[in-house]
Amino acid sequence: MTRIRVTVWNEFRHEKQSKEIADLYPDGIHGQVASFLGATDDIEVRTATLDEPENGLPDSVLENTDVLTWWGHMAHHEVLDDTVDRVQQRVLAGMGLIVMHSGHMSKIFRRLMGTNCTLKWREMGERERMWVVDPAHPIVEGVGQYIEIPHVEMYGEYFDIPQPDQVVFISWFQGGEVFRSGCCWHRGKGKVFYFRPGHETLPVYYHAGVQKVLTNAVRWAAPTKGPYPHTKDGPNYPAIEKFVVEK
Amino acid sequence: MTRIRVTVWNEFRHEKQSKEIADLYPDGIHGQVASFLGATDDIEVRTATLDEPENGLPDSVLENTDVLTWWGHMAHHEVLDDTVDRVQQRVLAGMGLIVMHSGHMSKIFRRLMGTNCTLKWREMGERERMWVVDPAHPIVEGVGQYIEIPHVEMYGEYFDIPQPDQVVFISWFQGGEVFRSGCCWHRGKGKVFYFRPGHETLPVYYHAGVQKVLTNAVRWAAPTKGPYPHTKDGPNYPAIEKFVVEK
Amino acid sequence: MTRIRVTVWNEFRHEKQSKEIADLYPDGIHGQVASFLGATDDIEVRTATLDEPENGLPDSVLENTDVLTWWGHMAHHEVLDDTVDRVQQRVLAGMGLIVMHSGHMSKIFRRLMGTNCTLKWREMGERERMWVVDPAHPIVEGVGQYIEIPHVEMYGEYFDIPQPDQVVFISWFQGGEVFRSGCCWHRGKGKVFYFRPGHETLPVYYHAGVQKVLTNAVRWAAPTKGPYPHTKDGPNYPAIEKFVVEK
Amino acid sequence: MTRIRVTVWNEFRHEKQSKEIADLYPDGIHGQVASFLGATDDIEVRTATLDEPENGLPDSVLENTDVLTWWGHMAHHEVLDDTVDRVQQRVLAGMGLIVMHSGHMSKIFRRLMGTNCTLKWREMGERERMWVVDPAHPIVEGVGQYIEIPHVEMYGEYFDIPQPDQVVFISWFQGGEVFRSGCCWHRGKGKVFYFRPGHETLPVYYHAGVQKVLTNAVRWAAPTKGPYPHTKDGPNYPAIEKFVVEK
Repeated sequence: MTRIRVTVWNEFRHEKQSKEIADLYPDGIHGQVASFLGATDDIEVRTATLDEPENGLPDSVLENTDVLTWWGHMAHHEVLDDTVDRVQQRVLAGMGLIVMHSGHMSKIFRRLMGTNCTLKWREMGERERMWVVDPAHPIVEGVGQYIEIPHVEMYGEYFDIPQPDQVVFISWFQGGEVFRSGCCWHRGKGKVFYFRPGHETLPVYYHAGVQKVLTNAVRWAAPTKGPYPHTKDGPNYPAIEKFVVEK
Repeated sequence: MTRIRVTVWNEFRHEKQSKEIADLYPDGIHGQVASFLGATDDIEVRTATLDEPENGLPDSVLENTDVLTWWGHMAHHEVLDDTVDRVQQRVLAGMGLIVMHSGHMSKIFRRLMGTNCTLKWREMGERERMWVVDPAHPIVEGVGQYIEIPHVEMYGEYFDIPQPDQVVFISWFQGGEVFRSGCCWHRGKGKVFYFRPGHETLPVYYHAGVQKVLTNAVRWAAPTKGPYPHTKDGPNYPAIEKFVVEK
Repeated sequence: MTRIRVTVWNEFRHEKQSKEIADLYPDGIHGQVASFLGATDDIEVRTATLDEPENGLPDSVLENTDVLTWWGHMAHHEVLDDTVDRVQQRVLAGMGLIVMHSGHMSKIFRRLMGTNCTLKWREMGERERMWVVDPAHPIVEGVGQYIEIPHVEMYGEYFDIPQPDQVVFISWFQGGEVFRSGCCWHRGKGKVFYFRPGHETLPVYYHAGVQKVLTNAVRWAAPTKGPYPHTKDGPNYPAIEKFVVEK
Repeated sequence: MTRIRVTVWNEFRHEKQSKEIADLYPDGIHGQVASFLGATDDIEVRTATLDEPENGLPDSVLENTDVLTWWGHMAHHEVLDDTVDRVQQRVLAGMGLIVMHSGHMSKIFRRLMGTNCTLKWREMGERERMWVVDPAHPIVEGVGQYIEIPHVEMYGEYFDIPQPDQVVFISWFQGGEVFRSGCCWHRGKGKVFYFRPGHETLPVYYHAGVQKVLTNAVRWAAPTKGPYPHTKDGPNYPAIEKFVVEK
């Protein structure tokens, strides 16, 4: 079986600057995400982080990545524009992209969405309940009616994104807000999934339901094979059918 | 009655460089578009062009524009990035945007779409037939089953755009291709319409059906009124409901 | 100005069977809905109820109705199948349809959706907050970030409907659920809007925000004019283009 | 490996009434479809036809079917309403449904769509070219830019269907029309794919491209596993969160 090649990208700054966060994610958030994704039979993982050369994403990595997962928060502006350009083109050429939590403000997500991607937020450790609203979607396979997470940072609407091709989760928060927490888009030959859960100070990536959804999302986002050309260039295209122009 | 304030933007270069094109559009493509839009009771028009200061779109103009129409082709790269930034934010804040024909490769359209926006093309003057595929949509009001244009530049799929919120026209071409020729998106508080017809060397903007659709599109894209806040900033938001976090 | 002709349909049974409900809606739910819709300049209203001949919706009424609003609950099964057939065909031919609250289980809504249209529900008089998630949509014109209703019957996901063309409201409930409360669809030449608020024992249709949305919805759902043919028959269609079949 | 259990349904009347059609499809259209689907490693097939008891689709068959494919044309009205009811509920409970060609007028497709499902048509044996317009979709895996079929019955817009969740193919025809030839919908827990190609008098189901798409579609439409409940009943649902109603 050919395995899905996943690159788990992390900004990896919070973990270096806060003992509390380092204690929670001793191998970094990327280490924890890689850990549960890599525990499957059909996924192989590597990791990459902001401070590596070319942000850890040179062409040699991107060309061997089927799905890229993205976690960033405090250093979005430090991601190189060249990295953003190359990741965008790889997505349009077929690579899956899974953006988590505060990655909603990352350069690459905003580039692909074309909007501000802003939202409301609040840190009080309140309860979230993510309801499934598209039970036919492969991303919710094995999930019940909802996923409950006991303590989270709240994200509230209006979430300034393009209308998703499919919304699979809508969240409820104790404080009174709702949020489209699982959103799918096709972009060129690639697939993009935004998934809300995750916060550097909370053990969200140890939650079994969150892990299941992210694993499902990798499988959904893996590229289809085949001869379809990349869309970077728009060709002058000869007529397929013969015809006569009548003046 | 409050009229819809439209700014008709044109690159306005072809008309200066080619006598043939100047003969076809003696007041510029913008002049012709402004002419039929302005002939209605409910629309008032001004024009703006690339070579004016701030590309003719200073804040004083944008803030008094309900709908901006865009025509560009040979000088997309000359549009200032600052202009693109400001137009994008105005769209997200509610201004309608109508992008015509070769504007698919404009900076502002690609910015808002997040994709390459490439397509196939061919200049042979072949016949196009734009079929209505969403007869409930206000943009097709008064249009019959299709609009036929005798001589056009062909645009063919794959058109590298996000899945439209609504596709209202699909085109047939003599040479064997199809194209999603009328596409609608909501972006933030604003509406975007891409409309395929139009070419600098062809009298497409004198075609009654094309004029009708563009007029309908202006009305559809006009902003809704009301107190909804702009989305440029994502606020830290206090809880609406009282709750106790159970540890 | 040509006014939008609205027929406000009500099952009108609860009001006859319960003094409490009759006290709340002394002219029937239809009377109250007709009252605020009819108070505008651009809408004219009539009402129709289940126990009238042909359920109050003979062809002479439907043919002079631009938008039909629907409220039913305890007697969905008593609506004649012939009425459902005729309303469905009128919608597909262009009439707008606005289905409120418990109308989600009406024959006509289920017919047009093709699904079971089931949901979770609870009557405890809890608080609802309907968040705007598509601020560009004309149905939310003049609404702020959310509409709060102090005491409602809860409706919860999964709401078994086709993916809406546009979701404009998502509700939050005190008890822990969410719901897609404002949903838009195009069907043939007609538009359909489902709007959650409303309950026979609660004064929801006296709420200013609810009234505003329903008024906006009538304007959105009003049919476009023009020559587009009805789709009841699928014609054998002669070729538009000349061509030779090569064997 | 657990294989996908496919039931290939066919009306199976044309083949009995016309020698020409019987020569083209000696084992029936169902036999030919079952033949190429069953030649894969991951799909197992059975067939069912109209004239069998319960139209060949008793509960014992439906409950062991992951994906049902449907071909009908001249006897749509003979399918039992009870069969339509049961197939509809199985789709909403998770079974995939693939409707081919003239199945657009079948009771089950019209039931699930809620519209008339009419279209234009013409039998002249003209050429069709189905263009891929969603290259990220798993249904187009391994397909190039388009599939060309030399001789077909034409189907033209307006196709009276709900806006698809995803359109994957748009067809071009020699005679001047276009058509949304590959359309995807989620309905409840189930997935529905409409695929245009196929005609009883033409060898369309021997075409390699058509076979590839139908095989991909079976894989896409196979149900997701897991605990999600069926939606036939809408439960009265106790509050998850504790709250106090403030009067």
